[in-house]
Amino acid sequence: MLEYLESLALIDHHCHGVLGRGLGRAEFEESLTEAETAGPPGVSMFDTQVGFALRRWCAPVLDLDAHAEPDAYLARRAGLGAAEVNRRFLAAAGLEALCVDTGHSPQAILGPDALGRLAGAEAREIVRLETVAERVAAEGVDASRFADEVRARVAGHGAVGAKSIAAYRAGLELSGLRPSDAEVRGAAGQLMLAAETAGTGPRVCDEILHRFLVWCAVDAGLPVQFHVGYGDVDADLRRGDPLLLIELLRAMDPVPAMLLHNYPFHRHAGYLAQVLPNVYVDAGLATHNLGHRSPALIAELLELAPFGKVLYSSDAFGLAELYHLGALLFRNGLAGFLAGGVEDGAWTSRDAERVAGMIASGNARRVYGL
Amino acid sequence: MLEYLESLALIDHHCHGVLGRGLGRAEFEESLTEAETAGPPGVSMFDTQVGFALRRWCAPVLDLDAHAEPDAYLARRAGLGAAEVNRRFLAAAGLEALCVDTGHSPQAILGPDALGRLAGAEAREIVRLETVAERVAAEGVDASRFADEVRARVAGHGAVGAKSIAAYRAGLELSGLRPSDAEVRGAAGQLMLAAETAGTGPRVCDEILHRFLVWCAVDAGLPVQFHVGYGDVDADLRRGDPLLLIELLRAMDPVPAMLLHNYPFHRHAGYLAQVLPNVYVDAGLATHNLGHRSPALIAELLELAPFGKVLYSSDAFGLAELYHLGALLFRNGLAGFLAGGVEDGAWTSRDAERVAGMIASGNARRVYGL
Amino acid sequence: MLEYLESLALIDHHCHGVLGRGLGRAEFEESLTEAETAGPPGVSMFDTQVGFALRRWCAPVLDLDAHAEPDAYLARRAGLGAAEVNRRFLAAAGLEALCVDTGHSPQAILGPDALGRLAGAEAREIVRLETVAERVAAEGVDASRFADEVRARVAGHGAVGAKSIAAYRAGLELSGLRPSDAEVRGAAGQLMLAAETAGTGPRVCDEILHRFLVWCAVDAGLPVQFHVGYGDVDADLRRGDPLLLIELLRAMDPVPAMLLHNYPFHRHAGYLAQVLPNVYVDAGLATHNLGHRSPALIAELLELAPFGKVLYSSDAFGLAELYHLGALLFRNGLAGFLAGGVEDGAWTSRDAERVAGMIASGNARRVYGL
Repeated sequence: MLEYLESLALIDHHCHGVLGRGLGRAEFEESLTEAETAGPPGVSMFDTQVGFALRRWCAPVLDLDAHAEPDAYLARRAGLGAAEVNRRFLAAAGLEALCVDTGHSPQAILGPDALGRLAGAEAREIVRLETVAERVAAEGVDASRFADEVRARVAGHGAVGAKSIAAYRAGLELSGLRPSDAEVRGAAGQLMLAAETAGTGPRVCDEILHRFLVWCAVDAGLPVQFHVGYGDVDADLRRGDPLLLIELLRAMDPVPAMLLHNYPFHRHAGYLAQVLPNVYVDAGLATHNLGHRSPALIAELLELAPFGKVLYSSDAFGLAELYHLGALLFRNGLAGFLAGGVEDGAWTSRDAERVAGMIASGNARRVYGL
Repeated sequence: MLEYLESLALIDHHCHGVLGRGLGRAEFEESLTEAETAGPPGVSMFDTQVGFALRRWCAPVLDLDAHAEPDAYLARRAGLGAAEVNRRFLAAAGLEALCVDTGHSPQAILGPDALGRLAGAEAREIVRLETVAERVAAEGVDASRFADEVRARVAGHGAVGAKSIAAYRAGLELSGLRPSDAEVRGAAGQLMLAAETAGTGPRVCDEILHRFLVWCAVDAGLPVQFHVGYGDVDADLRRGDPLLLIELLRAMDPVPAMLLHNYPFHRHAGYLAQVLPNVYVDAGLATHNLGHRSPALIAELLELAPFGKVLYSSDAFGLAELYHLGALLFRNGLAGFLAGGVEDGAWTSRDAERVAGMIASGNARRVYGL
Repeated sequence: MLEYLESLALIDHHCHGVLGRGLGRAEFEESLTEAETAGPPGVSMFDTQVGFALRRWCAPVLDLDAHAEPDAYLARRAGLGAAEVNRRFLAAAGLEALCVDTGHSPQAILGPDALGRLAGAEAREIVRLETVAERVAAEGVDASRFADEVRARVAGHGAVGAKSIAAYRAGLELSGLRPSDAEVRGAAGQLMLAAETAGTGPRVCDEILHRFLVWCAVDAGLPVQFHVGYGDVDADLRRGDPLLLIELLRAMDPVPAMLLHNYPFHRHAGYLAQVLPNVYVDAGLATHNLGHRSPALIAELLELAPFGKVLYSSDAFGLAELYHLGALLFRNGLAGFLAGGVEDGAWTSRDAERVAGMIASGNARRVYGL
């Protein structure tokens, strides 16, 4: 079964750009997990599930023995240079296509085209909704024209899907109602006023605007990816439970809603994928962060979620290793899950291969029309 | 251990009626999971844990090979006819008794007597509290007589237990206080007024009435079953966490509270079963829906819950297959759990058999006085 | 790996005193789990995961065969006498040091010194913050002097850490702000007034005071232990989710916050340990209560939590058996987790031993400066 999955190219339906430059140890550790920093004295981010997975699976890609020590690994990485490291890991991921969220780039990262070339895969764009709104607001458009301008840019972006980061800002408890023009105008005015007063760029964190943005994507017929659950500490995990989103998920049917990451609420997400026709789920980000434990996560996600509703994503950002680790751990975990079922007689190997194909790429191809 | 469990007849302490007629593929898929519909284009409800479990375990009961394809399965099912299909699956379940919730019948389903005959088991009734209240209200009783009338019907129903669906309506955050007569009168008046205004049947969804109904059952000395967690999307899973119910659970002691289903909050339910003397738990509905993963659910339920507080239920509704699948997966999962413990030396096989007997039927027999 | 872990002495960074006297069966059963009582008729607390673990692992320490029946076990226990029983189990735990929360003693229990002697280990004290505040209030100090007096006692207690039981009272949703002197004065006045009115001892259950107490410990540079999740039913598990505490955890950085127990929110706690630099976690209390299932808990805790942020505690209280069971099940579970990884090639045995040493004692030694 693992061999079969290794023969399948994956569609990574949600990832970000890769860094084009090298990194020192502290910066590397900061990029390895969702921690804010490399850890207090005495705590290394290499001593984590993802750290051990990286030493095991990524070291050989750089011609080192598995389990190389962190300093030796980083020395070899620096010696090869970022371009070669990126090339090796992206190629190793075995991808058919990537859908790249281009709305978050605190550092200089490579865009979809460069990423696609490195991976030898088709690269498509996911438009981050809040980023569109913040750009429009920053351009000083009149509040009365804000809604139309944002709507036009979302629809005209050429993206295959949209992404909402409401979970990072107002939280996922969004009403199912479409906001009125007057509400959007008022909220846009507030957004611009707050930015002017603070002397910063505009920052969307208002339930009305998050909701309005989702409706812009729905009106454009774009599948909407929602950040759910696990992420860095800005996400406030309390408000990231997908059950909070149920009214909006229902209201946007039949436009697909793609619940990303989900950990530790992945069973909640699987429930939603079963009971609501337009809900799809993945276990991105958490898969590589859980390392040796990722098979447990994948098995739990596949409890209630129909197998036609589950997708692969890495949610990789910055480190080239994460595109490879995500894909590798996903293939291993799914292969173990499916092979275990074959061995126990739960399903046939023919069905197992069919399900593998659906989750590896078929479901994504159908939903995004790739 | 599996042989031992197969030798034990189960008490299914919570199920519904079975459909007396055949079903087409779309209707069958809709009945298979808790989804609202048979799935969007490209998504089959057969490609789920319960779908694969059905093809594996139910096909042989209809004289097909395990893993028969869905269309072949449905053709054979249609050929045999509903009566024969029902007879085979109910008999295969191996039941000693069934407690049947008769309060929900959107379609024509067979009642407890017919179900008991099919299963060769004693059938007892569970009275659904909200249904009693809605009938009384629909009969146009005066609001001042509503409380007494409902109380009398609950006590006089001849049921062995009562069922609350507060989780589907107002949610489980119910106070522990017994509502006053004035509160009930007021709420009953509102219930009837709302129905009259809307021109529909009365629909209980008021915290005061749900609570009042639970107290009617408590006063009648009936164990109260609570829908908890997993169910169709009407349940609003956010409000279905059993921890929300803690004050009422405490207040109704020593009358037993039976927490049904519980997934994905089954660890919360197990906690309540340990710390509160009158709380009991099961994993109905989720057991067959999780299919090959149901052993993980059963093991998690048995972390904190005392083994004298755990019961079997199928929560089967409509499809005859579900009575069989629930029982079979429950026996398999519990047998695996107990046998694993024997193998590891965690308990003796004598203790394992004793625990099997408690969970299979002994606990239910004691709580319901069967 | 188990041999290696058995060769390591553990630091139990959170436990309570042991009872110095014998117990009858009902009282023993009440002490075995977090249940309020020994169970309703027909339900024995011996028929639980912890009950079976006790019969398996503790009976041999009292020279009985593993799986001795409860009555035989209790007869032998009574025959040996409390002093001998305590000596055997504390010695069997294999401890290097214990950090003893001395703030809760509803019955006569042995203090840190006696416990340390029994265990042959260094015993240090954890000061329970609410107990300090309640003593100061009970002494009738003027509300205007309350803050200074409490602050001085916390700092001068000679403890290696402090403990907050906010989860048992106001819940964990504590703001990150340091309360003003006026707020504390007002709340202290209320605390004393309420006690006087009720004619009872003062009882802290006010968000402002819980928060003030945490800041007293932070100002004294003491690591703060928080009760989280699982405990007896007074804890109201709804308010015991560690995600509720995120603002205060952030605000108190870099002083360490030690999240205790955590079950069933241990994945939430592991997340916090990863993303916040000053957060540490354990699985105390739940480890022995889950018995044969404790390996699953340990593996789930180690999903996101960096291995340099995980500690051992028993949270044992009263029964000497629990100090031994906690340590034994922790060693078994961690050994299984690490050995499984070695076997699968996830990490080397050298790394596994290094991680074992960190979790067994190294992390605790560093955080508490032992």
